[in-house]
Amino acid sequence: MSTKDLNFSVNGKSVGYTKYHGVARNFDLVVDEPEALGGEDSAPNPVEYLLAGYGGCLNVVFNLVAKELGIELKKLEINISGDINPERFMGLSSEDRAGFKSIKVEIQLETDADAETEQLLIQKAKDRCPINDNLSNPTPISYVFN
Amino acid sequence: MSTKDLNFSVNGKSVGYTKYHGVARNFDLVVDEPEALGGEDSAPNPVEYLLAGYGGCLNVVFNLVAKELGIELKKLEINISGDINPERFMGLSSEDRAGFKSIKVEIQLETDADAETEQLLIQKAKDRCPINDNLSNPTPISYVFN
Repeated sequence: MSTKDLNFSVNGKSVGYTKYHGVARNFDLVVDEPEALGGEDSAPNPVEYLLAGYGGCLNVVFNLVAKELGIELKKLEINISGDINPERFMGLSSEDRAGFKSIKVEIQLETDADAETEQLLIQKAKDRCPINDNLSNPTPISYVFN
Repeated sequence: MSTKDLNFSVNGKSVGYTKYHGVARNFDLVVDEPEALGGEDSAPNPVEYLLAGYGGCLNVVFNLVAKELGIELKKLEINISGDINPERFMGLSSEDRAGFKSIKVEIQLETDADAETEQLLIQKAKDRCPINDNLSNPTPISYVFN
């Protein structure tokens, strides 16, 4: 960790077969599964959290870069979706990967910029979005059990 | 998409400079940034959503695999953290990647299994966790603007 780095964390525990209660700073983050996946459907499921974070991340960088470029964002809607073959997760087959095979980001964007500046906004926003990076590229993960 | 695949989605829109309002099925997912990152601190930030989803995902697979192996989970606490150099996000430098440089998963696990079976539980849970896969390995992402 360099002096510039910011640390983010979620601490939590299992509070049920599919239910996790996490805490980030002063916020509670409860995760569950729908009944079809064995849960009680009391909260969004893990991959919905991932997609919501991705949408929130893109929102921040689009606004940030637009401000830098002097562009007004008149409309910004961000819909994100993806397909998962649940067979690996369920232990039925290891043919497909466990996670999203691919992710589709649909953005409705209206600005007061010309087409070239809008493309610059898009390119910079994608490049500077932390979650876009962590999903597009591998991230080293270390596990500690105690 | 094969017939086995499950689709997950979050649809949402920008409701402020750093605030995103997403919807997954019947759930609202509001994302914001702390004041230090230009937000109103009204909700967890994007990468906290990512970490919470990851914790929730590991909780589900540990419980699922433990049940398959006939193991009782007496305790399962999952703390996840990571460091981000915010300079790329802020447009100050492209030296470091935009997202988490690495992620640390700390798990407090108590079971009634022997050490060998516990290792099998850990190995299977990691392999079958969708978010562990999408963070460890690259995921194709397509953007559509309209």
